[in-house]
Amino acid sequence: MTPNPVLAQLVRNNWVENRHRGAFCVVNAQGGIVASAGDVQTAIFPRSAIKSMQALAMFRSGAVEKFALEPPEIALACASHQGEAAHIAGIENLLEKIGCSEGDLECGAHPPSDRASRNAMRDAGQAPGPVHNNCSGKHAGMLAVALALGAPLKGYCGLDHPVQKLVRQCIEDLIGEELSTERCGTDGCSIPTFAAPLRAFAFGFARMGSGQGLDHQTAFAMQQIIAAATSNPFLVGGTGAFDTRAMQVFDGALMSKLGAEGVYCGAVPALGLGYALKCEDGNKAAAQTMVASLLLGIARPEAGAREFLQKEARRTVRNWRKLEVATLEALPAATPKI
Amino acid sequence: MTPNPVLAQLVRNNWVENRHRGAFCVVNAQGGIVASAGDVQTAIFPRSAIKSMQALAMFRSGAVEKFALEPPEIALACASHQGEAAHIAGIENLLEKIGCSEGDLECGAHPPSDRASRNAMRDAGQAPGPVHNNCSGKHAGMLAVALALGAPLKGYCGLDHPVQKLVRQCIEDLIGEELSTERCGTDGCSIPTFAAPLRAFAFGFARMGSGQGLDHQTAFAMQQIIAAATSNPFLVGGTGAFDTRAMQVFDGALMSKLGAEGVYCGAVPALGLGYALKCEDGNKAAAQTMVASLLLGIARPEAGAREFLQKEARRTVRNWRKLEVATLEALPAATPKI
Repeated sequence: MTPNPVLAQLVRNNWVENRHRGAFCVVNAQGGIVASAGDVQTAIFPRSAIKSMQALAMFRSGAVEKFALEPPEIALACASHQGEAAHIAGIENLLEKIGCSEGDLECGAHPPSDRASRNAMRDAGQAPGPVHNNCSGKHAGMLAVALALGAPLKGYCGLDHPVQKLVRQCIEDLIGEELSTERCGTDGCSIPTFAAPLRAFAFGFARMGSGQGLDHQTAFAMQQIIAAATSNPFLVGGTGAFDTRAMQVFDGALMSKLGAEGVYCGAVPALGLGYALKCEDGNKAAAQTMVASLLLGIARPEAGAREFLQKEARRTVRNWRKLEVATLEALPAATPKI
Repeated sequence: MTPNPVLAQLVRNNWVENRHRGAFCVVNAQGGIVASAGDVQTAIFPRSAIKSMQALAMFRSGAVEKFALEPPEIALACASHQGEAAHIAGIENLLEKIGCSEGDLECGAHPPSDRASRNAMRDAGQAPGPVHNNCSGKHAGMLAVALALGAPLKGYCGLDHPVQKLVRQCIEDLIGEELSTERCGTDGCSIPTFAAPLRAFAFGFARMGSGQGLDHQTAFAMQQIIAAATSNPFLVGGTGAFDTRAMQVFDGALMSKLGAEGVYCGAVPALGLGYALKCEDGNKAAAQTMVASLLLGIARPEAGAREFLQKEARRTVRNWRKLEVATLEALPAATPKI
């Protein structure tokens, strides 16, 4: 198998220190590959990059209607949030709205990834709970799905639970192919994660953004989900998060979502494009430079967005004395001409 | 150029999630390559993996004799320590012995990498100082070198300062080739770091461990340095550190030292072997599985050491609920038969 190309590198002063290989695929709503690099056919784990696909279950189950869920709550279901006050308040409110509590969340606990929030909790002697898990919005949404389905809350993360069966069906419908337990693992937040090709995830996002090729109800739901995420970028990530800043600077014209281990998926709805990217070694910072570089090539950024992406595609690394010692930079191969 | 081989991978349940490429070289004291994988000729940055080479300057400058430096102090000069009590006490003692203070250290400050020590400082309201920098032992040693040379303390990290000129000469003598400012960057602790081939660093360690091919004074100094490090493994790393545990389980028969961005160098003195390894993408955990696997092949581990290395070469990854979700494992190509 041909190795994936080097798409980013860390240059220490005048010499390359690290090389990051990766693959990406840009697809239109008809499934045509508009641009790609590397292996886009072998299945990869999308992890949190497809929370917006998983959120479709909130519509199909009737949970959105039953609980009158609002766009900020849908955005939180799509989020890998940083545990900041607005995230926690929103999720606690959502849990209360559906008659659940933090104890129902099966995502496990970890401290907020936002440093100020993390330190504030520590200074106050507070231990992190499941609500602080970056996936707690998605999990609150899954509890809402369980309630709407009349399924038990306990065990909603299980592969054979009605919630996860519906979530799996939603993803399959969006990406246009079947998932398999032969390529299935457990995610950081304990729900199943199925691997599929970059091409398939990119196709799904192209359809989600444009509504093309989806049945009417699914197209309507995905329009609501994408609008909820792109109009509430802070809720989807948080202070300093790439997804948040990218969606802010694109002012509604971009859906961007990271996944653990170097994944990015997203859509440029006005252009009918979806994309999916994976850094082969799982490096988050390298994947971020790659996706910034990819968006420079495919998303037709306006001046402000272009400036943002250019800075993200070539990031300065400083040492403990704040000296500029290295540059993490995407290579030209990460910027396709389309 | 042929890509480096995949030497480690992250497997999530039943499917590969990440791939880590790398290269290694195992060399004898005559410079013969005993085993290798990938590109061992292109220069890589060794970072902290060669602190034991840099420590030679403490002998050549006369600092060891002038200040009657003891093995634990020499071990701390070779360390990437975790900021635990024993490390800080040892370095503060060394600074006092040479008439310097923490304010003379030019390495910059960062919190201890040992979690308990970091949290204890935070809970006590103490801010980390330069002495907590993982390189502070090396820097204290460099201050001793400056004093022994009669050179100014201020600016001892500079490329043209007598300390760094001597350190560079020491490395060149050990690896048997010239370093170049055309492949030179600034390290995390602000001293120069020169890139050179894996083959050259492995050769240096083979000579350091065996004393072969070095002039009498250098061989004597390197014997002292290697003995200091291997008999004080806790000072070289700390609680849970791979280098510390590996050197403990080998009971003096292994010199092991990591460098930032996925580097390991070391020696198996009794076998006359030196080795150097670099994970192409800089992943620390992947490099650790690779070097454990490499040592299984080359270091003739006894039962206890073999068991340790086998566990390190195949590490379980748990999620936030402590479920076993993935395995980070070295591939057979990382275990050469020699």
